[in-house]
Amino acid sequence: MNTNSSNIMALAPNTSNKRETVCIFGTGDFGRALGHKMIQSGYPVVYGSRSTQISNLIPKDAEVLSHAEAAQKAAIIIIAIQRQHYNFLTPLAEILHGKVVVDISNNLKLNQYPESNAEYLAQLLPGAKVVKAFNTVSAWALQSGALDASRQVFVCGDDAEAKQMVMNIVRALGLTPLDQGSLLAAQGIENYPLQLFPMWKFPIFLSLGLTAFFFFYCLALDVIYTYIYEKNNFSFFIAITIPNRICPVMALILLALVYLPGVLAAIIQLYRGTKYRRFPDWLDKWMLCRKQLGLIALAFASLHAVFTLVSPMRSFVRWRTSKGIISQALNNKTEPLDTTNAWLSDSYLALGILGFFFFVLVGITSLPSVSNSVNWREFRFVQSKLGYLTLILCTAHTLVYGGKWFLSPSAYRWYLPNIYMLSLVVPCTVLVVKFVLVFPCVDKPLTQIRQGWERNPKYFE
Amino acid sequence: MNTNSSNIMALAPNTSNKRETVCIFGTGDFGRALGHKMIQSGYPVVYGSRSTQISNLIPKDAEVLSHAEAAQKAAIIIIAIQRQHYNFLTPLAEILHGKVVVDISNNLKLNQYPESNAEYLAQLLPGAKVVKAFNTVSAWALQSGALDASRQVFVCGDDAEAKQMVMNIVRALGLTPLDQGSLLAAQGIENYPLQLFPMWKFPIFLSLGLTAFFFFYCLALDVIYTYIYEKNNFSFFIAITIPNRICPVMALILLALVYLPGVLAAIIQLYRGTKYRRFPDWLDKWMLCRKQLGLIALAFASLHAVFTLVSPMRSFVRWRTSKGIISQALNNKTEPLDTTNAWLSDSYLALGILGFFFFVLVGITSLPSVSNSVNWREFRFVQSKLGYLTLILCTAHTLVYGGKWFLSPSAYRWYLPNIYMLSLVVPCTVLVVKFVLVFPCVDKPLTQIRQGWERNPKYFE
Amino acid sequence: MNTNSSNIMALAPNTSNKRETVCIFGTGDFGRALGHKMIQSGYPVVYGSRSTQISNLIPKDAEVLSHAEAAQKAAIIIIAIQRQHYNFLTPLAEILHGKVVVDISNNLKLNQYPESNAEYLAQLLPGAKVVKAFNTVSAWALQSGALDASRQVFVCGDDAEAKQMVMNIVRALGLTPLDQGSLLAAQGIENYPLQLFPMWKFPIFLSLGLTAFFFFYCLALDVIYTYIYEKNNFSFFIAITIPNRICPVMALILLALVYLPGVLAAIIQLYRGTKYRRFPDWLDKWMLCRKQLGLIALAFASLHAVFTLVSPMRSFVRWRTSKGIISQALNNKTEPLDTTNAWLSDSYLALGILGFFFFVLVGITSLPSVSNSVNWREFRFVQSKLGYLTLILCTAHTLVYGGKWFLSPSAYRWYLPNIYMLSLVVPCTVLVVKFVLVFPCVDKPLTQIRQGWERNPKYFE
Repeated sequence: MNTNSSNIMALAPNTSNKRETVCIFGTGDFGRALGHKMIQSGYPVVYGSRSTQISNLIPKDAEVLSHAEAAQKAAIIIIAIQRQHYNFLTPLAEILHGKVVVDISNNLKLNQYPESNAEYLAQLLPGAKVVKAFNTVSAWALQSGALDASRQVFVCGDDAEAKQMVMNIVRALGLTPLDQGSLLAAQGIENYPLQLFPMWKFPIFLSLGLTAFFFFYCLALDVIYTYIYEKNNFSFFIAITIPNRICPVMALILLALVYLPGVLAAIIQLYRGTKYRRFPDWLDKWMLCRKQLGLIALAFASLHAVFTLVSPMRSFVRWRTSKGIISQALNNKTEPLDTTNAWLSDSYLALGILGFFFFVLVGITSLPSVSNSVNWREFRFVQSKLGYLTLILCTAHTLVYGGKWFLSPSAYRWYLPNIYMLSLVVPCTVLVVKFVLVFPCVDKPLTQIRQGWERNPKYFE
Repeated sequence: MNTNSSNIMALAPNTSNKRETVCIFGTGDFGRALGHKMIQSGYPVVYGSRSTQISNLIPKDAEVLSHAEAAQKAAIIIIAIQRQHYNFLTPLAEILHGKVVVDISNNLKLNQYPESNAEYLAQLLPGAKVVKAFNTVSAWALQSGALDASRQVFVCGDDAEAKQMVMNIVRALGLTPLDQGSLLAAQGIENYPLQLFPMWKFPIFLSLGLTAFFFFYCLALDVIYTYIYEKNNFSFFIAITIPNRICPVMALILLALVYLPGVLAAIIQLYRGTKYRRFPDWLDKWMLCRKQLGLIALAFASLHAVFTLVSPMRSFVRWRTSKGIISQALNNKTEPLDTTNAWLSDSYLALGILGFFFFVLVGITSLPSVSNSVNWREFRFVQSKLGYLTLILCTAHTLVYGGKWFLSPSAYRWYLPNIYMLSLVVPCTVLVVKFVLVFPCVDKPLTQIRQGWERNPKYFE
Repeated sequence: MNTNSSNIMALAPNTSNKRETVCIFGTGDFGRALGHKMIQSGYPVVYGSRSTQISNLIPKDAEVLSHAEAAQKAAIIIIAIQRQHYNFLTPLAEILHGKVVVDISNNLKLNQYPESNAEYLAQLLPGAKVVKAFNTVSAWALQSGALDASRQVFVCGDDAEAKQMVMNIVRALGLTPLDQGSLLAAQGIENYPLQLFPMWKFPIFLSLGLTAFFFFYCLALDVIYTYIYEKNNFSFFIAITIPNRICPVMALILLALVYLPGVLAAIIQLYRGTKYRRFPDWLDKWMLCRKQLGLIALAFASLHAVFTLVSPMRSFVRWRTSKGIISQALNNKTEPLDTTNAWLSDSYLALGILGFFFFVLVGITSLPSVSNSVNWREFRFVQSKLGYLTLILCTAHTLVYGGKWFLSPSAYRWYLPNIYMLSLVVPCTVLVVKFVLVFPCVDKPLTQIRQGWERNPKYFE
């Protein structure tokens, strides 16, 4: 740590306004796209290539030289070739000594090699200052200017000044550099562009599976049963009625699944009497995808809301309404207002609206920019307190909606319960256990355990 | 400023890939959690502790030594003990000289001590490079990996290189360091995690108070009055009808309260003839919570929208509709289309929809990431121009909805106006005053004053 | 690049806690506002002014001296005067040598001068370290504390340490500095606050034009035609019915216009056999405003959704419904359920809901904070795959809604098609061409071209 490196600033940005020359090794697609962009931004670009014949694909204002000559002309060398060909750089180690060498490569698979490409490059060129950058930007985006998503360029490297120089180029190209620390971060940076929503995979497959199950369950009870026993063809229920049964059920179950691992973790900690043993793997993974589960639940809840609001416009509902009114009119009687019914109808609607309102609130605080602007205490308050409030309101909404049919035999076609009854199992369990956990006699030891206390600190070593 | 500190880079990041050893003083909960996480990220960790007996709670790969020995092994010492015990560090001042000492402590109350903990530490250890960091992350979050909210770590310190070293560690742990400048910022950083939506307190209490007032007002007029004089039990109005009366009223009043301080400030400036005198304290505070007032207004407006859209599904509304149709059918007549009514109904709905649409637009630009991506001129355009348009549309919506009843005595139960009439007072006032302020003869002097002109520059000193 | 500037850190931040003195040249509005704020944040401020008489407008704790005296007292000099008067600084070049000189000026027009103000200043004072900063903050915002939008301060300059010093001041004032690289970025920074949604201009004007055209088209067909031939006064259609016809049409057309340039570009590339020739200018510009077109389309779609949901509450719709029911009741008959109709009604509603759902999803990923947190592959997946899914669903929604009338002569008033028929032209074209482009025999050469392959690499030079 006490190295007397007084010359570490030797590479400090040139104070003259002229951009320094950049050298690019490799005239492939990405090399050319980057060169084009750099020339546009005012950098003299020189290409290092095996064959120095000038191809029309290379930007006009760029020079093409041999690798050695090109490298000598610039302080920054961008390696736009694939990792398999890196060993051709070994003879150039002398020339590249002390230069900033930028690794922009990507792999085809996650963790394809034991070490990252940038670290491999650093091993090949021990004297060079290797910086990882630009791998998250696509050639297509660079050329077309369609940089909406990918303005962020992750930069890492062991040499602070080299990193700073590369970050200045990144900024000059209109991109946003993000310093990710030392070259150890390169592995993560190289894996990053290969991911396709990795945290979403399990929640999405779970949702699709449950949705399919509930769809066929509803299809059997609502369409096939009606067709067999009542001779009614309600196949059009597939379009709105059945989706609007599945959506609220999925929303409620997934929302409960967000809070279930928390109470499971609390039970495990209480049982073990310590927080210093790892949870089972499945529980760890479950806890890490709670945000995704919650957002999918919110999507289902939103669909449920729209499907419900649209119902007065449905041909079937209008037909049913007018049939009811006409039969009253033909019988010459007006039914009086049923206050109990009005109470039930209004309160389940109100509970649903409030539940959805708080659900959306919790969802908004999941937006990265909002959750970054609240502190840990505020985030916990919203995600935990408001989240549980949402769960309580949505469970109550379902209970008030269908409670009266729990004991009515006619609600059980083929002796099977309706799906909203199934959907209540998980949330009610979570709420009951949580209610128990909130009691002081349970909450106090749990809090102590979470602050580091241990019941049996016997297994000292 | 002209210090010749050519050795200030002595602490430059090591260019070898090995992580440097980190020392943690204190084996409490947070110290252990941090140590665990650092070992996971590849840092050798050594604990400084009074008793060097190896506890099973301490991460297995960590060493435990006496404070002095531990400190000598590392360039960075993290102080994971409480401020009250800081004075035990005084004898170690010699050893800590020139080292990076990281203060991670939090207090229990806002501004608990005259100076921040980090500044106090810097006074105790004049030779150490004190950096404040990590206080916004909770031990629980570190251990469970549930770092959704708290990826941001505020870092401040007087020594640039020491700060850089700490920020590199923060990045290596998968967190985002935010440089907050010199150690003077430590007070703010220590207060930050203790806050629970401080800017929201007044707007929320104001909304709750007003909501309670309007609730009992409506309860009296809509439920109790009807029960006494018309013998109708409309108690179920509590669920939807009354909330749907309160929400639009609250939305309109709060939205007007967003723009009221602006016109008050303009009047004060015009009266005083200068902008160089401070506004009264209450006005300053009011102006600072306008964003929160506006967002709460938007929440009420959203609830109003959903409560309204849900109405055709309400049992009561369906009963009332069918009663009307049946009575027409029984009387054998069909009422013709009332075009005036159709105009009124359609235009108040359209005004409401447009008002809500612009309200949501203004709300979206309040999202931190959106408001950060617009410049001052664009932000002013949206917040001021579109905001006033929203206020005008919502006020017109209310006027068209209820205007015809202003002069009808039957609208005044117990001689009290309906709440939507009350809700119009503030917005109409704001709009009228704003309208006057826009006139050139008023606007011109106001603009001059805001550009720094003074009517009576007499009170020279 | 190999300059041995070991004294470049001479300006390193003072390690004592006292803030360094800041000098401000110019006692105008912004100079005073900045001085006020700096004194509040603990900086000693000294003003440089032609007349050193103490004006009451200048903050009380500030000193006022001649320019030369003031500059000597501080290491940082903020130039709060207009560019036209910069040449008065030439005689001070000696004194400002080696100092940090901050240019905070703005222009009145975009690209008013050939070089940026900051670069002009750097030419006048070759020995000074010029930093551009603070120009995006307004004096009014600084004084009133209303810094919601403008916390970001863009900083650029050629000297890293000078920039760091200015960024520390920016942080101390409670603002967020954003390093924009070298002084070459000053032109962009000076243009930034003058913009008013530059990328939105074309999409907004296009939408307004199309909306106006469709409004008069609908007015003619729905109101005037009905009035002339059917003697019905449906003028109230202007409030909701016509807007609710225009909104979906606009949403569909604009959404298709988002994807049209992409297929045009593919066709051009296929025809040319290379991707290395620039697209025509109009296509480039079109591609750059696709995000804005899409968001405006989403706004229209949202309005369409609300206008539709509100319809059961409309006076006209309730009158029409009850008329239908009464006529059935009076004729003593009940129409049976029309299953085909139920299927059509439910499926176009369901298609619309799903289309809108995915549209909102795509819209949410356009939020800056969300699109920054996904990688290029994920962004492409959402914007392209989900975007096309949205387009397909919305087109299908329109086809199912109105398909049955395409061949019915009564749908053509004055031999003109209804606007939803017009709206189908662009999306259907896009979908058909895209469908062709997806075929392997077309997709393969296109992919090759996009990876850099050329059909006729003949025009070598």
